Amino acid sequence: MTVLVVGSMAYDSIGTPHGGVDDALGGSATYFALASSHLTPTQLVAVVGTDFRAEDRATFSDRDIDVEGLETVEGATFRWGGRYLPNMQDRETDFTHLNVFETFSPRLPQSYRETSNVFLANIEPRLQLEVLEQMQNPGFIACDTMNFWIEGPARPHLDELLTRVNGIIINDEEAALLTGEANPVLASRIIQDRGPRTVVIKKGAHGALCRHEDTLIAVPAFPLESVVDPTGAGDTFAGGFMGQIAAAGEVTTDSIRQGLVVGTVLAAECCQGFGVSSLAAMKRPTIEERARMFVQLTSLTSPFSEE
Amino acid sequence: MTVLVVGSMAYDSIGTPHGGVDDALGGSATYFALASSHLTPTQLVAVVGTDFRAEDRATFSDRDIDVEGLETVEGATFRWGGRYLPNMQDRETDFTHLNVFETFSPRLPQSYRETSNVFLANIEPRLQLEVLEQMQNPGFIACDTMNFWIEGPARPHLDELLTRVNGIIINDEEAALLTGEANPVLASRIIQDRGPRTVVIKKGAHGALCRHEDTLIAVPAFPLESVVDPTGAGDTFAGGFMGQIAAAGEVTTDSIRQGLVVGTVLAAECCQGFGVSSLAAMKRPTIEERARMFVQLTSLTSPFSEE
Repeated sequence: MTVLVVGSMAYDSIGTPHGGVDDALGGSATYFALASSHLTPTQLVAVVGTDFRAEDRATFSDRDIDVEGLETVEGATFRWGGRYLPNMQDRETDFTHLNVFETFSPRLPQSYRETSNVFLANIEPRLQLEVLEQMQNPGFIACDTMNFWIEGPARPHLDELLTRVNGIIINDEEAALLTGEANPVLASRIIQDRGPRTVVIKKGAHGALCRHEDTLIAVPAFPLESVVDPTGAGDTFAGGFMGQIAAAGEVTTDSIRQGLVVGTVLAAECCQGFGVSSLAAMKRPTIEERARMFVQLTSLTSPFSEE
Repeated sequence: MTVLVVGSMAYDSIGTPHGGVDDALGGSATYFALASSHLTPTQLVAVVGTDFRAEDRATFSDRDIDVEGLETVEGATFRWGGRYLPNMQDRETDFTHLNVFETFSPRLPQSYRETSNVFLANIEPRLQLEVLEQMQNPGFIACDTMNFWIEGPARPHLDELLTRVNGIIINDEEAALLTGEANPVLASRIIQDRGPRTVVIKKGAHGALCRHEDTLIAVPAFPLESVVDPTGAGDTFAGGFMGQIAAAGEVTTDSIRQGLVVGTVLAAECCQGFGVSSLAAMKRPTIEERARMFVQLTSLTSPFSEE
């Protein structure tokens, strides 16, 4: 089944202690779509400026990504700049120029409206709700959010959104902020009580915790020898997770477990190059090999026979 | 097969934001033996003072723990006091009174000398080497260590020890200090190059990473809703790990995976009460149930068929 993503498209300037890039293709919808399109056809709703490069547009059209929903507006594309601290996890923002993203109002092409798998990447909760209004056959809808919407005046919209989505994919800091509970096991239950039956809490280099219905799933991160640039890893994880669930065609504990594997594998590869470079260069056989490798290296057995 | 542990026995005074205990039974050998004795007969080498309580001695003799190697020396038992910060991971030491532990010189009873599974808990590396000298049939020997021995004048002894053990079980900070490499995937390889073929790096609330020969195994922590007192969780993990490997009777990738499961389950229970209280109250059926639960909640599947 097809998956639809609504999010940002940006040009990122990223600095790390080991180098950087300027004006590199980025944004939540970009990372998500590049990841999910490895698994299933992907529809994209985002906005770019008239400065958006033809080669970047080709990055999508060369893949199984439908860009009918990619709107071009007079002006400059959203730009973000930041630098990672030596731990390669914390970062400082140098600038955020919303540009054409400031007035983004997601409009779904007619051909997108019956898509049943939807990811509402981190945008204003009011806009996430507007997307839902345009959907005619929503099946599995998941969202992301961030501190700005959790702590700010948009909170009532976010709370309403939670009652209307099936899943949420956020990081551990956001989960703590949203619930007032630092323990992700408890936080995931509190979030579930507010709506979504599938809660994925990403813990960066420490993996992820997923609560789906009554099932808890703990996933370590893919063991990496180095990290070049973690930008976009969270959206890439979401893209692999949602893409695999859409490919499976049903939301079950099994497809959730598979989604966690694919999300982890793609997020790890995303960290291996600046911007989307490594993710975009990844080929399907590598994904399949890494997924098998990850299942192998997380495989545990109990010494005690079954009851 | 039997497992032998050489380490400390102490009375701990532990403070947390949610309460504490004074003069509670503790020490690396204590936690290890209480854990390993759930799996296999355990021999214990440690020293206590004449103030050691009869009820604490009974904690061992009530179990499958051989205390012939528990020496009593005129004076006071080792005492440690500390307080956990609100994150319940970092802690500050209030006092360390070595007392009779200061002149500890481990002497193995004749009946211990042919034991093949040995854990050298965190004591002076010179003493760890002296234990090895007394072993006649060493099979699988693993050690722990700490920053004090890594950074201090004992380092040459520690380096020699590494060439003579089969395994090492340390936390991520110690691994980084020992290797100069913060990334545990790389650090585990560097340590392997210095001797032990089995390297387990404990990451506290984030699980563990194990490199055994050419196999990498990533293990998340057991998802806990709360932590009462993490004191001794690392030694408890080691006890479950080593105890299970001894029970399996061979060191294979399978018994290592089983050891990681049992170590994780026991360490999690250890955190549920002050001192050894929860660990000591645990019964075998609960361990078996939790091990199955942990394997279930870490079970992942690849969506891609085998090649």
